[in-house]
Amino acid sequence: MHRFDEMPPVPLTVEGAGVLHQMTRVRWSAWRALESACRADILNEAAGALEALEKSRSACYALLGHKGDLMLVHFRDQFDQLLEAQHGLTGLRLWDYLEQTTSYLSVIELGLYESTGKVYGSLAEKGIEPHSEAWKASIEETLARQREAMHPRLFPEIPPAKYLCFYPMDRRRGEQKNWYQVPFEDRQLMMQEHGAIGRRYAGSVKQIISGSIGFDDWEWGVDLFADDPLVFKRLIYEMRFDAVSAIYALFGQFYVGKRTDTAGLRDWLTV
Amino acid sequence: MHRFDEMPPVPLTVEGAGVLHQMTRVRWSAWRALESACRADILNEAAGALEALEKSRSACYALLGHKGDLMLVHFRDQFDQLLEAQHGLTGLRLWDYLEQTTSYLSVIELGLYESTGKVYGSLAEKGIEPHSEAWKASIEETLARQREAMHPRLFPEIPPAKYLCFYPMDRRRGEQKNWYQVPFEDRQLMMQEHGAIGRRYAGSVKQIISGSIGFDDWEWGVDLFADDPLVFKRLIYEMRFDAVSAIYALFGQFYVGKRTDTAGLRDWLTV
Amino acid sequence: MHRFDEMPPVPLTVEGAGVLHQMTRVRWSAWRALESACRADILNEAAGALEALEKSRSACYALLGHKGDLMLVHFRDQFDQLLEAQHGLTGLRLWDYLEQTTSYLSVIELGLYESTGKVYGSLAEKGIEPHSEAWKASIEETLARQREAMHPRLFPEIPPAKYLCFYPMDRRRGEQKNWYQVPFEDRQLMMQEHGAIGRRYAGSVKQIISGSIGFDDWEWGVDLFADDPLVFKRLIYEMRFDAVSAIYALFGQFYVGKRTDTAGLRDWLTV
Amino acid sequence: MHRFDEMPPVPLTVEGAGVLHQMTRVRWSAWRALESACRADILNEAAGALEALEKSRSACYALLGHKGDLMLVHFRDQFDQLLEAQHGLTGLRLWDYLEQTTSYLSVIELGLYESTGKVYGSLAEKGIEPHSEAWKASIEETLARQREAMHPRLFPEIPPAKYLCFYPMDRRRGEQKNWYQVPFEDRQLMMQEHGAIGRRYAGSVKQIISGSIGFDDWEWGVDLFADDPLVFKRLIYEMRFDAVSAIYALFGQFYVGKRTDTAGLRDWLTV
Amino acid sequence: MHRFDEMPPVPLTVEGAGVLHQMTRVRWSAWRALESACRADILNEAAGALEALEKSRSACYALLGHKGDLMLVHFRDQFDQLLEAQHGLTGLRLWDYLEQTTSYLSVIELGLYESTGKVYGSLAEKGIEPHSEAWKASIEETLARQREAMHPRLFPEIPPAKYLCFYPMDRRRGEQKNWYQVPFEDRQLMMQEHGAIGRRYAGSVKQIISGSIGFDDWEWGVDLFADDPLVFKRLIYEMRFDAVSAIYALFGQFYVGKRTDTAGLRDWLTV
Repeated sequence: MHRFDEMPPVPLTVEGAGVLHQMTRVRWSAWRALESACRADILNEAAGALEALEKSRSACYALLGHKGDLMLVHFRDQFDQLLEAQHGLTGLRLWDYLEQTTSYLSVIELGLYESTGKVYGSLAEKGIEPHSEAWKASIEETLARQREAMHPRLFPEIPPAKYLCFYPMDRRRGEQKNWYQVPFEDRQLMMQEHGAIGRRYAGSVKQIISGSIGFDDWEWGVDLFADDPLVFKRLIYEMRFDAVSAIYALFGQFYVGKRTDTAGLRDWLTV
Repeated sequence: MHRFDEMPPVPLTVEGAGVLHQMTRVRWSAWRALESACRADILNEAAGALEALEKSRSACYALLGHKGDLMLVHFRDQFDQLLEAQHGLTGLRLWDYLEQTTSYLSVIELGLYESTGKVYGSLAEKGIEPHSEAWKASIEETLARQREAMHPRLFPEIPPAKYLCFYPMDRRRGEQKNWYQVPFEDRQLMMQEHGAIGRRYAGSVKQIISGSIGFDDWEWGVDLFADDPLVFKRLIYEMRFDAVSAIYALFGQFYVGKRTDTAGLRDWLTV
Repeated sequence: MHRFDEMPPVPLTVEGAGVLHQMTRVRWSAWRALESACRADILNEAAGALEALEKSRSACYALLGHKGDLMLVHFRDQFDQLLEAQHGLTGLRLWDYLEQTTSYLSVIELGLYESTGKVYGSLAEKGIEPHSEAWKASIEETLARQREAMHPRLFPEIPPAKYLCFYPMDRRRGEQKNWYQVPFEDRQLMMQEHGAIGRRYAGSVKQIISGSIGFDDWEWGVDLFADDPLVFKRLIYEMRFDAVSAIYALFGQFYVGKRTDTAGLRDWLTV
Repeated sequence: MHRFDEMPPVPLTVEGAGVLHQMTRVRWSAWRALESACRADILNEAAGALEALEKSRSACYALLGHKGDLMLVHFRDQFDQLLEAQHGLTGLRLWDYLEQTTSYLSVIELGLYESTGKVYGSLAEKGIEPHSEAWKASIEETLARQREAMHPRLFPEIPPAKYLCFYPMDRRRGEQKNWYQVPFEDRQLMMQEHGAIGRRYAGSVKQIISGSIGFDDWEWGVDLFADDPLVFKRLIYEMRFDAVSAIYALFGQFYVGKRTDTAGLRDWLTV
Repeated sequence: MHRFDEMPPVPLTVEGAGVLHQMTRVRWSAWRALESACRADILNEAAGALEALEKSRSACYALLGHKGDLMLVHFRDQFDQLLEAQHGLTGLRLWDYLEQTTSYLSVIELGLYESTGKVYGSLAEKGIEPHSEAWKASIEETLARQREAMHPRLFPEIPPAKYLCFYPMDRRRGEQKNWYQVPFEDRQLMMQEHGAIGRRYAGSVKQIISGSIGFDDWEWGVDLFADDPLVFKRLIYEMRFDAVSAIYALFGQFYVGKRTDTAGLRDWLTV
């Protein structure tokens, strides 16, 4: 039997902006069947709406491949606002010519392995009982401090890079290899090693991790922003050999798109 | 070979209301193509019907993401009434503009690990043979007592919280890790630990578990009701490290929606 | 390496009626778009055909959930007749308003673990070589006797219960746990234990097992008939803890429907 | 680490006719919506084409269940000719009323375990180095001899039996049980045992195996032809307990159809 | 616990042209419903565009089976140009009659196991610390040299062979058998053995490997070009028994098509 008393502690996390990815396919034949003046009207309406969305931290990407033609990414402070952004789009006449193929709902997250180790260690040293009021206050104080310190990373602008790679992922919970049963210290070490690889790519790729446990079908979403899409492959391939990815990472579908502003979108849809 | 005589006993459960989740997608372009007066007529008809459904313990949620636009949740005393609710919706003109993407059928359930342990222990002590008349009477008496004591939890109103998170789940029956072969006492301990985490969130999230063995494609459905959707992630992430979830939980798709009353729905559909 | 000489013997089975399950979804909006007189004509035509089908051992069920609206179940002596029943439906005008979502093809089967053990034991005792003429004659005689004795169970009427639960299933052929490598005696013991649970529910649920190896994508289909749908959950949950289900059962999708006669169907489709 | 030097040798195979299975669903409502004279015209055109196809070794089957209504099977000497048969069908007006649900591409194959054992053994005895010119010549000569001897089985007519059961399959490459790592001699023994079962059914079922590695999503396709469809179940169930199937066989979807000639097809489509 | 210090090094790779596969299905009934003059106009427009694409290293294949009718393959120096090729097609009137069923995005890649072994060995001998400036310079110099030497293989023309077999694949990351945890030397040996088989088929099949980590849902895409499609089966079957494939290869769907030039395509679409 497994040992109840050795269950590893949960790493503390802080959360920021809600994130919604919307993958859509253009109904090209219906779109092309419209009178050109009608298309222009629809594009004018859409352009205004998209410019407003961009100002509220949304961005549009032209996707490569059949999984969709356009991907919209929204960062918002609250889920209420994500729902508003989503609903606003359904009100556009352009939406009749876009078919939503998939989506992803998550919240920007920073995992605090190091802080967790420290605060738990210090609480244990002081003999403070888990889940006591003092314990909760100390944890909450740690979280509040981190939320403030990390605010720019928790509520970021959408990076302006030319290409975006998005994919969801899980940590494996296999019958023999189960991330959620690995001792905390080992997980912390593996995450450090993993982070070190990421930092070597800091100049060429910007990574935003969002948590989706309880929100969508995978545990995390990963957004990589880079001007040269080849770095997506290099970074992920190198990471695939680190312990946490080699043993514990399970990947969903990959989406690669090129950033398109409102003017670009208008060109894109002018057929 | 496995040992037949050590097969763990089945935990007693009591059942309450039948539950049907219906996920639907709005056919936005067909809907928008209608004359505005026609849409108003259809909404008037639908509003009356939805208000009646709400009074019979149904609720409507605006979903985030592409899995659907509206989720209807029905609690009913009998499956016959769930079928009536479902059939009544197909009679609405609005139903022509809603496409059912998925659904989930289950019945509210309370697992009685503690009572099971006690009553089985006591029956064994008294030397009462399993499945004898006396044994069945004692079990049935335990169940009847629990059904009465638990009545409010078995036949609840739909909690009024702003957000709902729904997902189905299984207990793992792997080749090495198989919940249905774990000794009863160990399962009981793990469920206690699991429940203790849930109770720490009692102030911010209301959980309703429904059983779906024999009804739908997963073993259980979980509905979490909360005003702040972030607690869905926190609760489920913390639980993912407890033994019963880390080792034995398998999850289906997650649905997150915001409660919408009839007036809200009318606004939502006024494009 | 595995041992060729210890491969477990195949249990004898006898087969009866062919079974076809057809799950269909009503095209509600197309159906509702028809003139009411036209709908009545179509229903009249369908009613006559369905009454004839019912007399030939077919039944109709209103399904709960999105997997379909109507499930048709046909028991026929031969596959030729199943094909005729299927083809006859495609000739109905109502069929234009029904979309087939899935189906299941199988044949009613009784597994003869006990007889198999006896006849194989007796043949071995007498030193009769497997697959010799004498051996085949003895096996064939056993099968013929069983087919006659079991005739009512092999070619049954469709039980008149109010609810039906249908699901397909497999026996696991995992890398460590493989039903088809378990010694015959152990399989026989597990099947006895499994059957004993079923018999405790004999008063409230009628079970019909059909084999589908070579016919459809799972190995068996299970039909449970009961007036109270809660017994589906109780029976299957209790069985989930017996060895053969806990370790070796893999389940497909579950379909739950309420029996509907021609008059009921007419009501159901009168919108 | 695994041992490179003990990798089992590849069994020799000889290949014959290319095989294409096409599963199609009739668009019944569009078809029925046509004027009866128009349907007759379309059927006349199709009948001529189908008769020509039949003469070139094609056959048509009425499928049971929702996976399709009609399955076309084509045997052709070359892939070029399969492509022509496929393209010819798209030119028929009937094709507008048939929706292709799936297909399978393969080539009739005979695995030569016994010859392989002999020729490899003899080459090793003579000390002839693998992949040397002499080695290749000897292998090629064996293959040429087998291709000639097996010609009727490699380029067969489609057997005229009343029923067809088609399914694709793989040999398991699991983490513990991996067919491709089993020593050659053990594979040969298991295939012999497997073949012996098949031969006991020789009078009632005709089996054609086609290889699809590099052509389609499973490794082999299996076609069983029989007048009594129950033998499909009996044969496959018995085989499921032999070592090669119990441990190493993975199965795709099963398709069961009844042979229909052009006249039968005309009847079938006359609604 | 696994050993962090023994994680195997990442093999160096060099990348060349971006690759996009587009599988499309012809909407035959809509296409046939057009006036013949209209079809001719559309084909004239498409022919001009396809000829231009072919000159920029694109090719068209007629697919066997239901996965699509036409597969377009594009090799381009940059992802920007792949996006342009893709967008250009959506501007063709023919595109209204083609439904994209799937696609695959990757980049031509050469894995440098041998160079990696040498340069890492030499750096270790010289005591140069990993990821130091000297280390990075030496690695970058190796890559630059290889990119130049391999230029023709990294930016190839599409081979003119009559048949193409395309499939995506992964290296297994199982709980016991995990490619990414195999020591570098063992991987190098397995890749050598694998390459040796490929070289024996050099006269009859041309293989192009592209990497898709970070771009699409599998790790690699494989394109095999041959005049005789039977060599696809022979090559892949032989490889299936080598260690790297038998133990570590997981395969996606297979697509087999016949090269079609613009004139051939025009014939193909003239119905």
